[in-house]
Amino acid sequence: MADQQAFHFEGTFFETLSIRIVEATRERVVADMDVRPELTTVGGRLHGGAIMSLADSIGAYGAFLALPKDAAGTTTIESKTNFFAGAAEGTVRAESVPLHVGGRTSVWQTRITNQAGRLVSQTVQTQMVLTK
Amino acid sequence: MADQQAFHFEGTFFETLSIRIVEATRERVVADMDVRPELTTVGGRLHGGAIMSLADSIGAYGAFLALPKDAAGTTTIESKTNFFAGAAEGTVRAESVPLHVGGRTSVWQTRITNQAGRLVSQTVQTQMVLTK
Amino acid sequence: MADQQAFHFEGTFFETLSIRIVEATRERVVADMDVRPELTTVGGRLHGGAIMSLADSIGAYGAFLALPKDAAGTTTIESKTNFFAGAAEGTVRAESVPLHVGGRTSVWQTRITNQAGRLVSQTVQTQMVLTK
Amino acid sequence: MADQQAFHFEGTFFETLSIRIVEATRERVVADMDVRPELTTVGGRLHGGAIMSLADSIGAYGAFLALPKDAAGTTTIESKTNFFAGAAEGTVRAESVPLHVGGRTSVWQTRITNQAGRLVSQTVQTQMVLTK
Repeated sequence: MADQQAFHFEGTFFETLSIRIVEATRERVVADMDVRPELTTVGGRLHGGAIMSLADSIGAYGAFLALPKDAAGTTTIESKTNFFAGAAEGTVRAESVPLHVGGRTSVWQTRITNQAGRLVSQTVQTQMVLTK
Repeated sequence: MADQQAFHFEGTFFETLSIRIVEATRERVVADMDVRPELTTVGGRLHGGAIMSLADSIGAYGAFLALPKDAAGTTTIESKTNFFAGAAEGTVRAESVPLHVGGRTSVWQTRITNQAGRLVSQTVQTQMVLTK
Repeated sequence: MADQQAFHFEGTFFETLSIRIVEATRERVVADMDVRPELTTVGGRLHGGAIMSLADSIGAYGAFLALPKDAAGTTTIESKTNFFAGAAEGTVRAESVPLHVGGRTSVWQTRITNQAGRLVSQTVQTQMVLTK
Repeated sequence: MADQQAFHFEGTFFETLSIRIVEATRERVVADMDVRPELTTVGGRLHGGAIMSLADSIGAYGAFLALPKDAAGTTTIESKTNFFAGAAEGTVRAESVPLHVGGRTSVWQTRITNQAGRLVSQTVQTQMVLTK
C-alpha cells in the first residue's frame, strides 16, 4: 500500500473531504468517505460535487501510482460522472481501476456505492502524464 | 435575483466551498469562489473536485430557477468537465448558462476562469426535472 | 433474443454500418462490425465516429429492450466515449450492459474490442424513456 | 482554407457521411451534412452516431489544422455529446471551435443545428497531439 502521508494532505481539499484510503496500488484504489453535513446538499444527501471530488482524488491517486518512472506527475484533463442513487447516511465506498495505462495518459474508472450497497455513481477520468 | 438564503446553505457543502452567488436568473448564474488551502491539492492549486463542485452547484442552481412551475426539484444525472488551466491564488469566477431547458431535463454549461482571466474549465451537466 | 428484423433496419444507418447483432437481451447486447474502408479514416483505421455509432446503436437497442411496458420508446440524451486503441482490420466486437435501468432513464456502458482482443473504446450513454 | 482533397477522403467514412467542408481554419471549421436515409434511424431521424461522427470529423479536422509544426498527427482520445433536438430533413450544419490549443492536446467544441435553426447537439472532444 502506498504511503498516504507522503502526500502531506493536511489542510488540503483531500482532508476537507475526510477521504480514508483503504487500499492503493497501481491496479486498484479503494477509499471511504463519510456522509457528513459539510459534504451534503440542502436536502441532506451527499453533494454531487463531493462525489466527483472523491472520484477525482482516488483516480488521480491511482494514476500517480501507475506513472512511468521518469514522469513528473499527473493531472486530470477530463472527468465524466453519471449519477444513479443518493447517499444520505453512513459511509460511501469508492473503488477506482484503470481502463488504460499508457506513456502519455491513463484512464481511471471509479464506482461509488452507498451504505446500502447501491451504485451511487460511475466516473471515468483521463489523467495526463506530466514530463520533467 | 434569487434569494440565496432561501436554500439554508448553512453547514452544507455549498458553505464548505464558500461559493458566493453574484447573479442568478434562469438564464445565467454567476458565482465566485476563493482559492483557499482547504480547497487545494497538495501542489497548492484549486482541486479538480472543488472546480467540479462549483460548477455542479451553480448549474443545479440555474436548473432550479428554470424549473417548470409544477416541478418538485432537480437533480444532476451526469456531468462532464474538461480542465484547461490551474488556479493557484485569488478568486475564480464561474458562469453557467443553459444549453437546453425542457420539461424533463435542462442542460447547463459552466465556464470557470481564474484570477488572470484564463479559462480553467468547462462543465456540461444534465439536470433531471423531478415531478411531484 | 430480440427479433432484429422487427426494426426494419434496411436502408438505415444501422445497415450502413453493417452491424450484426449476436445477442440481445435487456441485460446484455453483443454485436460485431467489420472494419470496411467505408468506415475508416484516411489512415485506414476504424473511424472514431463509426466506433461511437456502433456503441450508440447497441446501447439504444438494449435500452429499447429494457423499456417499461407502457413506454413509447427511447432516445439517447448524452454519450461519452474514451478511445484506447485502433482497429485496422478484421472485426470489432461490442458488448453493452446496463449500469442503471429506471423509469425515466437507463444508462448503458459499451466496450468495443478489436480483432486482437484489445480494448478499443468504452462508451457510457444515457437513454431517456419516452412516454406516450 | 485547407485543401480538403489533400486528405484523400474518397472511399472513407468521411465520404460515407457526405460531409461538405464549408470553411476550415485553425480557429473554426464549418461543415454541412444532408439527412439521407443511409444516415437515419428506423424513425427517419438523423442517427445519433451520424451526428457524433460529423462532430468528430470536423473537430479532428480543426485539431489537425491547429497542430504544432513538428507534430505527426492527431487522434481523438475522448468525446462527449449532449443531444437536444432531432433532424428529420434537409441539411444540418456543424461548427467547431477550439476551447484549448496546446502542445499536447487540443479541445474542440462542435455545435450542430438543424434546417430549422434549432440546436441538435453539442460535442466536446479532446485531441491528442501525436509526435514523430
